[in-house]
Amino acid sequence: MHERTVDLNGDLGESFGVYRLGQDEVLLEWVTSANIACGFHAGDQATMRRTVKLCLEKGVAIGAHPGLQDLEGFGRRAIPLTPEEAYELTVYQVGALEGFVRAEGGRLQHVKPHGALYNMAAANRPLADAIARAVYRLDPRLTLFGLAGSELICAAHAIGLSAAEEGFADRTYRPDGSLTPRTEPGAVLHDPEAAAAQALSLVESGRADTLCVHGDGPEACAMAAYIRRRLEEQGVRFRSLADL
Amino acid sequence: MHERTVDLNGDLGESFGVYRLGQDEVLLEWVTSANIACGFHAGDQATMRRTVKLCLEKGVAIGAHPGLQDLEGFGRRAIPLTPEEAYELTVYQVGALEGFVRAEGGRLQHVKPHGALYNMAAANRPLADAIARAVYRLDPRLTLFGLAGSELICAAHAIGLSAAEEGFADRTYRPDGSLTPRTEPGAVLHDPEAAAAQALSLVESGRADTLCVHGDGPEACAMAAYIRRRLEEQGVRFRSLADL
Amino acid sequence: MHERTVDLNGDLGESFGVYRLGQDEVLLEWVTSANIACGFHAGDQATMRRTVKLCLEKGVAIGAHPGLQDLEGFGRRAIPLTPEEAYELTVYQVGALEGFVRAEGGRLQHVKPHGALYNMAAANRPLADAIARAVYRLDPRLTLFGLAGSELICAAHAIGLSAAEEGFADRTYRPDGSLTPRTEPGAVLHDPEAAAAQALSLVESGRADTLCVHGDGPEACAMAAYIRRRLEEQGVRFRSLADL
Amino acid sequence: MHERTVDLNGDLGESFGVYRLGQDEVLLEWVTSANIACGFHAGDQATMRRTVKLCLEKGVAIGAHPGLQDLEGFGRRAIPLTPEEAYELTVYQVGALEGFVRAEGGRLQHVKPHGALYNMAAANRPLADAIARAVYRLDPRLTLFGLAGSELICAAHAIGLSAAEEGFADRTYRPDGSLTPRTEPGAVLHDPEAAAAQALSLVESGRADTLCVHGDGPEACAMAAYIRRRLEEQGVRFRSLADL
Repeated sequence: MHERTVDLNGDLGESFGVYRLGQDEVLLEWVTSANIACGFHAGDQATMRRTVKLCLEKGVAIGAHPGLQDLEGFGRRAIPLTPEEAYELTVYQVGALEGFVRAEGGRLQHVKPHGALYNMAAANRPLADAIARAVYRLDPRLTLFGLAGSELICAAHAIGLSAAEEGFADRTYRPDGSLTPRTEPGAVLHDPEAAAAQALSLVESGRADTLCVHGDGPEACAMAAYIRRRLEEQGVRFRSLADL
Repeated sequence: MHERTVDLNGDLGESFGVYRLGQDEVLLEWVTSANIACGFHAGDQATMRRTVKLCLEKGVAIGAHPGLQDLEGFGRRAIPLTPEEAYELTVYQVGALEGFVRAEGGRLQHVKPHGALYNMAAANRPLADAIARAVYRLDPRLTLFGLAGSELICAAHAIGLSAAEEGFADRTYRPDGSLTPRTEPGAVLHDPEAAAAQALSLVESGRADTLCVHGDGPEACAMAAYIRRRLEEQGVRFRSLADL
Repeated sequence: MHERTVDLNGDLGESFGVYRLGQDEVLLEWVTSANIACGFHAGDQATMRRTVKLCLEKGVAIGAHPGLQDLEGFGRRAIPLTPEEAYELTVYQVGALEGFVRAEGGRLQHVKPHGALYNMAAANRPLADAIARAVYRLDPRLTLFGLAGSELICAAHAIGLSAAEEGFADRTYRPDGSLTPRTEPGAVLHDPEAAAAQALSLVESGRADTLCVHGDGPEACAMAAYIRRRLEEQGVRFRSLADL
Repeated sequence: MHERTVDLNGDLGESFGVYRLGQDEVLLEWVTSANIACGFHAGDQATMRRTVKLCLEKGVAIGAHPGLQDLEGFGRRAIPLTPEEAYELTVYQVGALEGFVRAEGGRLQHVKPHGALYNMAAANRPLADAIARAVYRLDPRLTLFGLAGSELICAAHAIGLSAAEEGFADRTYRPDGSLTPRTEPGAVLHDPEAAAAQALSLVESGRADTLCVHGDGPEACAMAAYIRRRLEEQGVRFRSLADL
């Protein structure tokens, strides 16, 4: 059995004020990297701090998860954005999250844009370049997470950042390699077996350095656990990029 | 003539979206340290970046100016706050501003709380301690600006941060050393000569390491210029703390 | 058995964007009046519209539930407020909610301030007067809900508005008739029997025109159902004020 | 000389908190209808109330000016929107503004969408229908302002609302009748004579029921005054639609 290693990332810290979202404590048992919301599309200061501390306690690698300034739309609406604006919102949010990590004595591993920003950066090179430049200028040792094969990955390579190509276990792909938009039917795989099979295929074909699992549905953590166990049975090992 | 040295600080970067506030380019000719708004009570990401670049070009030392999350009230309403919340909003905002400074190749010099946060931290020791702890954990080399003789100065000393005792040229004081609230008559000195005299007294008595001037009224920059010139005539030299 | 009639009100429409709060459909089976959040401390436009429609379908009387502009603090932080500001935020939010009611062909029954605004209006007469004036000017036929015996009730009477004195089944009172703050231990009664007993006492003593039940905890709806059933067994009838 | 009558409308109430925008008092001397910002793209509750009172004092007809929820972008960024969302944000904002008008004893005359919402509604019929339906359901006597010849005008007619076809004195048009976007060069006419000539042509050809002038630049009010005077010299009379 050929051994393969992959990172498993999930979104955390998406609560806001009295509003709870996700089951962070449970999801942290399964992921090796956490993408922590930075207060624009989700998250608040108390949640950011608490989530950073949880990750450090659990030994889960920490990433900033900057999004569009759209709490009402959870950062999923494609608000038009200039590259300058993308640069600025990346610096702001990554700086803020990195502040909490530093204050707790930890170290930021990666940056992964969220939602509409992620999708726009996958297809729009100037936007991707702006985000990569923001991350590079903040800290050239950071890793940029992007959709496998996307413009964001190219932008990271072009500026000299390390990039992690991301595959989605429970989202379906369109023929051009982009994700099926959530507004379309069949965008999300709800069957754990199908998701695990897709995840295994992504890992074995070498198309994914990191796999994304979701944490914000009732059965989300069960899905993450199932995928991880099934892949481990197939000899896949899970480690964060920082541990490699 | 006995030579004395003092820092002159002013608030910058208070514009938001299409809204302009202050005359940053003019004020930058006179101050030696800038307190840059961090997006909670004023400022936005584009303004933060532009203001950081302006300061670096002019050689003016940069400080973060965190405030309460109250754009509508400009951070001047005393929103009740736990020490934990004060810690978290300080980490968030200083982290964000520091991100812009680092991305531009600069170095953050200081942190000065804004408005109601500044006043609450002057009188409330647990709040002051929380802010000082946030700053210290982010970077123990930062200087904390606080009202001369206030709890915030004590908190900075207690945790091992360097502190700058601040005096106000154009605000009047109450007998206990606190500032007359802006909601009361006579809170602001509008006469440049009176403000210059108060500034000189603060410097000569050794009660102020840094003098604050305002930038958000029509005659604010003229006031700053007048005070600086008058004190220079009296042998006072102006330098940022980083230059000392 | 002496028959008594009382209104039963609950807070609804507190979700925001992707964030869900409360079990509105279940709570609507038990309450006779709904206080609908207006977008400042909770709620968004889609939630307001959906909740108004639900109430009209269920025949539950509709009230506006204006709060402080503090989504992060859920309107529970006592942000300092002038009477003018209280007047303005009441007009804005009640106007907005009333727009949805009118667009659906319904009629607004009442206004109940939320959280910190409710508590401040209970104790501060100028604030209470400003809120009562806002409601009266919008529509003098509206009923103002306030803590039984509070300044808000006095203010409603003074301007000529009908007022509903409110009692809380599951909150404890301090000797002066004010609510024990949520930040103190014992502020909330978790035992349904104790809550039902307090509710019955409030109704039988004639101290409450309307009883408040909460909808935002896991056992909240069960509590509401229990209180209503227990009081009905004692001969209490539940009807909205509009039905009287 | 053939007499023609036209309405002259301008945007008012665009200040927010400490931020001032526009010269409302001056512009009110020239316009016959005011479009008052409703707190989403600009304006706050205090500004809305003050502006409504000013309009009533001056006898200027009042309109609601709902925009996208984007204070940072001043409602000019084309945030993707479903028709349902457009319906909801229109009901919310018009309801809120109408609350202030009613509380002051006045009457709302019209609704004019702002910025990106205006442009999207001009070209997108389902969005236009949703806005027209929101206005109609709130009050079928309201007038809907839209770009002359646009989908919004068609939508108003289709539902039975009166519509005012709007022409722009100081914006240039593209061959299809849409406005040149502000991001393109030549979008705005800065020469008062050219703007007055375009305004006269719009009125004389019967293409405009209402002319729009801007109030947010240094020479904006002078432009409005110039256009009005020049057209009056040509025999054009200015009256709000409510006065016709």
